Amino acid sequence: MHSDSPLGRSAHTPFEQISSLSNETVKLLRSLDRKKSRTESGLFLAEGARHAEEALAHGWRPAYALAGAATLERDRGADLLHRLSAAGARVLLASNKVMEAVSRKDNPQTILAAFRQRDIALKDLSASGAARWLALYEVRDPGNLGTVIRTADAAGMSGVILIGQCCDPYSVEAVRASMGSLFAMKIAHADFTGFNHWRVDQGARLLGASMHGRVAQDEADYGSRCVILMGNEQAGLPDPVEAACDQLVRIPMRGSADSLNLASAASVMIYAAWRASGYEGAAKA
Amino acid sequence: MHSDSPLGRSAHTPFEQISSLSNETVKLLRSLDRKKSRTESGLFLAEGARHAEEALAHGWRPAYALAGAATLERDRGADLLHRLSAAGARVLLASNKVMEAVSRKDNPQTILAAFRQRDIALKDLSASGAARWLALYEVRDPGNLGTVIRTADAAGMSGVILIGQCCDPYSVEAVRASMGSLFAMKIAHADFTGFNHWRVDQGARLLGASMHGRVAQDEADYGSRCVILMGNEQAGLPDPVEAACDQLVRIPMRGSADSLNLASAASVMIYAAWRASGYEGAAKA
Repeated sequence: MHSDSPLGRSAHTPFEQISSLSNETVKLLRSLDRKKSRTESGLFLAEGARHAEEALAHGWRPAYALAGAATLERDRGADLLHRLSAAGARVLLASNKVMEAVSRKDNPQTILAAFRQRDIALKDLSASGAARWLALYEVRDPGNLGTVIRTADAAGMSGVILIGQCCDPYSVEAVRASMGSLFAMKIAHADFTGFNHWRVDQGARLLGASMHGRVAQDEADYGSRCVILMGNEQAGLPDPVEAACDQLVRIPMRGSADSLNLASAASVMIYAAWRASGYEGAAKA
Repeated sequence: MHSDSPLGRSAHTPFEQISSLSNETVKLLRSLDRKKSRTESGLFLAEGARHAEEALAHGWRPAYALAGAATLERDRGADLLHRLSAAGARVLLASNKVMEAVSRKDNPQTILAAFRQRDIALKDLSASGAARWLALYEVRDPGNLGTVIRTADAAGMSGVILIGQCCDPYSVEAVRASMGSLFAMKIAHADFTGFNHWRVDQGARLLGASMHGRVAQDEADYGSRCVILMGNEQAGLPDPVEAACDQLVRIPMRGSADSLNLASAASVMIYAAWRASGYEGAAKA
């Protein structure tokens, strides 16, 4: 690996090389754009060196890493592949054709890694002291989901709870939109009843975003521990869920728009809640 | 049209019927997913009855409307097609195959309309009294652009200025993400120099979102007239543009995320600015 041979480092690679689309591993990785295959395999795809680095840094376990042959010729790429291998990944050097097929892009990232999904329970999201969580009720759009995970991470929230039938946070679109924050954020699934018991037990106020709210997001009472609850893109929150909230919050609006994009509304709410705690923990400018 | 004949209203339709993908109008409408074709034709595509209604309500001029034959059998659909026709649209009743081909979807909207683009100059965005505008510097992602247009509309901004090489607000993705707000919002293109002259002339403060900012968005001085300026998704704002700002604003962050999604960050800024004016003009809850 550390040879300066004119053949380049790849001449000494310990990694397998593949170029066939009918290779079973290639077929498996390609299938990870489908929910069914992700569920059966327990795997999901992380695109690019930056996401692989984030995942390793947060202790996620890689199962496979696919890399363009040129990746080994760069020090950082070779180092990352060896760390992925040491963490348990089967590393495969792939032809451009294979990289394009798995990524479904013309200019694929140089590394495509499959990581094992994590099974995170509500209790794993428990936290002490001042804390804020984000709960999403039947969110449907994976781009929205990834984007709010990114915002929740940036604002130092203690976890994201997906309530009811939500889209899959491990979908390629959600992972991509999260820009690596998926690997840093604890994400649990729950039904509303289980979630509501947990948050009461945590002593957290529940603030639901709703057109029926009577207080704006910057005047709401978040307390020192709260859950921000956002409804489905089309239907919002069901009545019984609104009834369980300590406070309903209405983001002011005018103009012809009668609603905001879910990720935009969540961002406005998340930042209003963090502001109420004086941006506790924010990085120095 | 108002017959109760058992053949249904479509038997009396004054509209042409088409089922061939080689029809010239179908080809034109299909081509509107490309920037070049939108520029040459001066047209863009609005999907669905809701967007067509919004566009008509704001005085946009339709050139074509494509509708599934069943649209005429519903009172609201028939009424909309007649109003599109009265506003200048050539209305065509299309087979499902044609609807799918133009929309590139398996379950297309029942109405696909092509409207004429508007050429809006900076001076058309001038406003008196308290006012807020949004400026985007080389925004690249049409989904982000549509989403921020939606937020700007919801927060009652006086217009959106696209500075430099931005993505196209008339792209299918941007129109879709704007959820109809594209039709309500004035959107102008400008270079930075022209824009900056205009905003100085308007007496508007320029607040740039930047990692170099020293004040958080809720402590910034927006004055009664301001422009919120957001940078490119990857590169942010160039130094000379930051230097021209009256104030640089930094959205607080912690966690592993080092930035927010552009539309999320813009939403946080837009709402902070509107809050500073006491949500002037907001609709009553």
